[in-house]
Amino acid sequence: MHHPEKVSHDGIVQVALEIIGRVRHRSPRVHCITNTVAQNFTANALLALGCAPSMTLSPGEIGPFVTGAQGLLVNLGTFDDERREAIGIAVEAAAKQRLPWVLDPVFVDRAPPRAAFARELIGRRPAVIRLNHIEFSELAGDAPSRDAAMAFARNNRVVVALSGATDLVTDGKRVVSIANGHPLMTKVTAMGCVASALVAACLTAEPDALHATVAAAVTMGVAGELAAEKSIGPGSFAVAIIDALHNLGGPTLTARAKVS
Amino acid sequence: MHHPEKVSHDGIVQVALEIIGRVRHRSPRVHCITNTVAQNFTANALLALGCAPSMTLSPGEIGPFVTGAQGLLVNLGTFDDERREAIGIAVEAAAKQRLPWVLDPVFVDRAPPRAAFARELIGRRPAVIRLNHIEFSELAGDAPSRDAAMAFARNNRVVVALSGATDLVTDGKRVVSIANGHPLMTKVTAMGCVASALVAACLTAEPDALHATVAAAVTMGVAGELAAEKSIGPGSFAVAIIDALHNLGGPTLTARAKVS
Amino acid sequence: MHHPEKVSHDGIVQVALEIIGRVRHRSPRVHCITNTVAQNFTANALLALGCAPSMTLSPGEIGPFVTGAQGLLVNLGTFDDERREAIGIAVEAAAKQRLPWVLDPVFVDRAPPRAAFARELIGRRPAVIRLNHIEFSELAGDAPSRDAAMAFARNNRVVVALSGATDLVTDGKRVVSIANGHPLMTKVTAMGCVASALVAACLTAEPDALHATVAAAVTMGVAGELAAEKSIGPGSFAVAIIDALHNLGGPTLTARAKVS
Repeated sequence: MHHPEKVSHDGIVQVALEIIGRVRHRSPRVHCITNTVAQNFTANALLALGCAPSMTLSPGEIGPFVTGAQGLLVNLGTFDDERREAIGIAVEAAAKQRLPWVLDPVFVDRAPPRAAFARELIGRRPAVIRLNHIEFSELAGDAPSRDAAMAFARNNRVVVALSGATDLVTDGKRVVSIANGHPLMTKVTAMGCVASALVAACLTAEPDALHATVAAAVTMGVAGELAAEKSIGPGSFAVAIIDALHNLGGPTLTARAKVS
Repeated sequence: MHHPEKVSHDGIVQVALEIIGRVRHRSPRVHCITNTVAQNFTANALLALGCAPSMTLSPGEIGPFVTGAQGLLVNLGTFDDERREAIGIAVEAAAKQRLPWVLDPVFVDRAPPRAAFARELIGRRPAVIRLNHIEFSELAGDAPSRDAAMAFARNNRVVVALSGATDLVTDGKRVVSIANGHPLMTKVTAMGCVASALVAACLTAEPDALHATVAAAVTMGVAGELAAEKSIGPGSFAVAIIDALHNLGGPTLTARAKVS
Repeated sequence: MHHPEKVSHDGIVQVALEIIGRVRHRSPRVHCITNTVAQNFTANALLALGCAPSMTLSPGEIGPFVTGAQGLLVNLGTFDDERREAIGIAVEAAAKQRLPWVLDPVFVDRAPPRAAFARELIGRRPAVIRLNHIEFSELAGDAPSRDAAMAFARNNRVVVALSGATDLVTDGKRVVSIANGHPLMTKVTAMGCVASALVAACLTAEPDALHATVAAAVTMGVAGELAAEKSIGPGSFAVAIIDALHNLGGPTLTARAKVS
C-alpha cells in the first residue's frame, strides 16, 4: 500500500508561479507533433505563454527541429504512417539530448493500432503522460482512481496527469489535485491537446516533472475560469482563453489556484 | 413531369426541433473526413451542438473509428491518395453497419480527378449530398434548378441539399426551401463544410434523411442570422456562430425558421 | 554602391489603395500551398479581402487548381515529400501561364533540407520572397540590412519583403519602408503566412511586384493597428484583424499608412 506524500498548497502554487515566470522570460522553443485539428489553437496558446512553437511533421526534417527545441509534445491525434515515423525520430532526438517530453495518447480507446503504438511510446520514457479517464482505462487496464494512477506512474516511471473535473497529477509517490477549470473547456476541440502542450512548455523551465505538470494544469484551469467570465458560448470562450493565457498574472493565479 | 409534394411549414420545423433536441441529448459520435482548413471549425461546431467529433484520416485506423461512430461526413477538400484510401475504407465500414453518410463534393469543378472520384462515391450511396450551384452543375451536367435537383436526387436515390441564398432540399419527391442565413456566411472559410457536418449529426437522430437535412440547414441558417447581429465582420462572425449553435433554443428556431 | 530610388509617399499609398480596390472588385482565386497551422486563418484573411482561396496540396490535382487561379503562394511550413512534389507541379503550372508567385521560406533556419529546397525554389523565379530577419540571414548569407536586401533582390531578380518592426520592400533599385503594425502580430501564429498570402492576392491585381507587395504590407499593418485597438490579448486580436481586413476602407488606410 502506498500512501501519497503530502504536498503543501502554498508551496506548490508558488513553485507554479515561478515556473510560468521562467517560461515567459525564456521564450522556449516547443516542438509539437499534434493533430491538424489542434495545431492552430495549440500554437496560439504556446505563443500566449511566451513560447516559440513549431509544428512540422516531416520525417526528413523533424530531427533538427527537435534538436533545436527545448520542449517536445507527442500527441497521437489524426496520425498515420508518416507521423509514426516522425514520432520515432523525434523521440530519439529528444532522448539524445535528454529533453523531457510529453505524451498525449488521444483517442487511444478508439482503434487498436493507436493503443499499441501508445504502449510502445510509453516504453520510450516520456516524462509526462496526460490523458483522460477513458484513455487511462485503455492503457492502464484499470479503472481510473488515485491509486491506479499512482501505480501506473510507478510502473512506467512517468508522471501521470489524469484530466477530469478535477485533474490529478502523480509521480507515484506524490499526488496533487487541481480543481480549477470550467465545463466550457469540454466544449472546445483540442482543449486537452493545448493543456498537454503547456505541460511541454513548463517542462522546459522545471526539472521536477510533477511541479511542471501542476504549473501547466493550474494555469490552464485558471485561464479557463477567467475566459468563462467573458464568454457567452464555446466560440467566444476559445478566444478568451488565449487572451487569458496571455494576460494571466501571478496574483490572479495565486488567488484562484485550487490545489491540494 | 414530377410535382413536388407539399410539406407543412409548422410540421417540418417541429420535426427539426425534435431532431436537434435528440442530437443534443444523445451526444453522437460523428466522424469527419474533411479538409485540414475546415477541421477545427467543424469540430467546434459539432461540439456546440452536443456531438463528439473525431477527425482521423489514417487508413490504418479509420475503420474502427467509423465503426464506433453514429455519423459520417465525407468531404473532398485538400484530398490526396491517402485520403482517398481512407474514404474507401470509411464508406465500406459505414455500409456494413448501415450508417447513413453525407458527401460534400467541395471544389469538384476545379480538377477532373476530384469530379471522377465524387461520381464514384455517389455510386456508393451516400444518404445526402450537400453542394453549391457550381458543384451541382459539374456533377449533374445540368444547370441548378428545383427540377434538376429533383431529377438528380431520383436518379441517384439520394437527398440533395443545394446550397445558396435559399437552400433547397429534395429527395426527388418532396422539396423544402430554407431561406435562413446571412451573407457573412460566404465570407468565412469552411462554412459549407460545417453545414454538411451538421447534416451528418442530424442523420444520427433521424431516419428520414430529408428531415435530418432540413433540420441541419435551418439550424445553421438561424445560427448565422443570430451571429450576424453580434458581429462586426467575418472574424467575429465565425466566433459568434459557434456561440449561437451552442445556445440556440427551440423558441428562437421556431420564430425564425423560414421553411417552405 | 547602389543608391535607392526615392519613392513618393502619397503616390505609393494611392497606388496601394487602387490595388486593394481591384482585389476586392475582382475576387481573384488565390491558391495557397501553406502549412496546416496557417490554412484556416489564411483562408479567412483572403476571404476578408474579397479573394476566393483554395488550399489543396495533392500532387494529383494541384496543377488544375493553379491553372485556374490568378495567384499562388508557396509557404514551406510543415512540409514533406508530398508537399515538395506539389510545390514543383504548382510552380511549373504558374510559370506556364506567367502567374507571379510568392515564396515564404518559413523556418528555413531550422533544418538544412528546408534551406536547400528554398534555394532551389528561388532559382525558379518567384516574383516576391517575404521573410523575417533570421530567414534572410540563412538564405542571403548576410546580416539583414537595407543594402543586403537590395543586393539579394538584384542577385535573384526578385522583390524582397523583409518583415520586422518596420517592413522593408525592395526590388534592388527602389526601397520602401512600411512602419505600420502592432507587437501583438508576433503573438498570433501564422500572421506572417497571412501577410504573404495578401502579397499573392495583390499580385493578381498589379504587375509591379514592388507596388503589390507594399499594398499588402500597408493593409496588413494598418489592419493590425485597428485590431489592437479592439483587443485585450492575442485571441481577440486574431479575430479583430479579420474583421479589420474586411472593413478597412481607403480613408483609414490613407490616414494611417506610414510609408517612406
